[in-house]
Amino acid sequence: MAEPVFRRLALIGLGLIGSSIARINLDGRTLAGELVACARTPKTLARVAELGIADRVEADPARAVAGCDGVILCAPVGSFADLAAAIGPHLQPGAILSDVGSTKQSVIRDVGPHVPDGVHFIPGHPLAGTEYSGPDAGFAALFQGRWTLLTPPDGADAAAIERMAEFWRRCGAMVETMEPGHHDRVLAIVSHLPHLIAFTICGTADDLADESRSQVLKFAASGFRDFTRIAASDPVMWRDVFLNNREALLEMLARFMEDAQAMARAVRWADAAYIEDKVERGRKIRRSLIELKQA
Amino acid sequence: MAEPVFRRLALIGLGLIGSSIARINLDGRTLAGELVACARTPKTLARVAELGIADRVEADPARAVAGCDGVILCAPVGSFADLAAAIGPHLQPGAILSDVGSTKQSVIRDVGPHVPDGVHFIPGHPLAGTEYSGPDAGFAALFQGRWTLLTPPDGADAAAIERMAEFWRRCGAMVETMEPGHHDRVLAIVSHLPHLIAFTICGTADDLADESRSQVLKFAASGFRDFTRIAASDPVMWRDVFLNNREALLEMLARFMEDAQAMARAVRWADAAYIEDKVERGRKIRRSLIELKQA
Repeated sequence: MAEPVFRRLALIGLGLIGSSIARINLDGRTLAGELVACARTPKTLARVAELGIADRVEADPARAVAGCDGVILCAPVGSFADLAAAIGPHLQPGAILSDVGSTKQSVIRDVGPHVPDGVHFIPGHPLAGTEYSGPDAGFAALFQGRWTLLTPPDGADAAAIERMAEFWRRCGAMVETMEPGHHDRVLAIVSHLPHLIAFTICGTADDLADESRSQVLKFAASGFRDFTRIAASDPVMWRDVFLNNREALLEMLARFMEDAQAMARAVRWADAAYIEDKVERGRKIRRSLIELKQA
Repeated sequence: MAEPVFRRLALIGLGLIGSSIARINLDGRTLAGELVACARTPKTLARVAELGIADRVEADPARAVAGCDGVILCAPVGSFADLAAAIGPHLQPGAILSDVGSTKQSVIRDVGPHVPDGVHFIPGHPLAGTEYSGPDAGFAALFQGRWTLLTPPDGADAAAIERMAEFWRRCGAMVETMEPGHHDRVLAIVSHLPHLIAFTICGTADDLADESRSQVLKFAASGFRDFTRIAASDPVMWRDVFLNNREALLEMLARFMEDAQAMARAVRWADAAYIEDKVERGRKIRRSLIELKQA
């Protein structure tokens, strides 16, 4: 039996991601010898205790991280500056501080200044999720076969990076390191923009006159149903993602809007070749994804 | 054993929808005593013969409909005007002519003038589909539990409407009649606009610089993967849908673009409450869909 990656690990936030990590550790303690769960609301803490997925629950982040050699922030990224300020002074020398946030430049901006000398700050982002949230939503297979991206700052300790990589491999993930700015641009197009669009079109439909709206719900064909699946995600998490990847998201959205306007023009002027070409490109991307086994 | 709905039925077009109808009829001939399959390309005809899902294959639409008491157009809607002109003179008095096109005003415009007196024209649209196309893509459960909308013209024969309703119920579908213009508006928002958006965002991603593009494919998170699933649909079918529901589609797209611009503005100016509200609406719509058992 391999040693656990961490002797004592604190998870700050027990939503979909945090509670999945906790569930993975139940089977063989491969991640942490002792797992401390810290959540903001008494309701979440009580539920985590009830589920029995952590060794200890703790309301105070500063107390949660005491004596830990690993700390992972699993809360919405908008809370990271305050969390980092609260736990910074209590982090143990040699400990690893990581996170699972969907935006990485903002995390480095908000958390970096609070990391004491001797603590290894290795930001990370598991590319996994469902439309569900909260401690009941997690499951041990969530990261299986999915990528986790690590965005360590320049000069980060190689052993600490490898320890986080090993952590995610034990969760079932494939691991790659990436420059934080590049991460934010790639995620803007593959995840953040699609979510923004899905939320928006649900609102557009909801604004239709009452009679049409009930028809919309009744006859939602496959296209719209897929959009609502995406749009069912956690509001606070996504609000924070949008606000913390503003530049890249607005750039990708502007590109998309130009392309959508061009498509509108093609529909208006019956430019059949243009439309066919665009649809054909969608198919090609789909085919590439299948070849890469991500679909 | 109930009588089949039609003594002899011609399907013009054997793609996903047509070949699914043919497969349903294999089990017990509940739809047609004899099923004639007509397709434009020799390749599709040969494949349909090979699959053995029709009693007869026929390249010429006029010959296919001869002696039929039921004819259903299952080709892309852009081909309907020519098809209707070709088969009109050969339709048998008392026969029902129907279709499965995604746009209904255009079908009435293109097919209506070619329907001889004494033939019952009952347009229809099964709200079912996958991202696959062609005669191999069909399957007997495609319509199970899904809606089929009939848009009969004013004064259509009640018995003919009921016969088409029975046809679709035997396919496993729930049936409702709807005014054609209303159908086109509802479908514009639940299906046509989501598809247009999905095709567009795939193009936007594909336009990124080569290095980013390969990363996009490699790290496609769930949001983007769902979009590519939608975007993998048949190019000619969707080209025709967009061009034949132009007014409603452009109106819904304009509404969506306004809403997306408002979201962009909220992201730029960090209007957290606005963003949260929009995300929350997406969740509500999702919840409504689940209650209506469409998700």
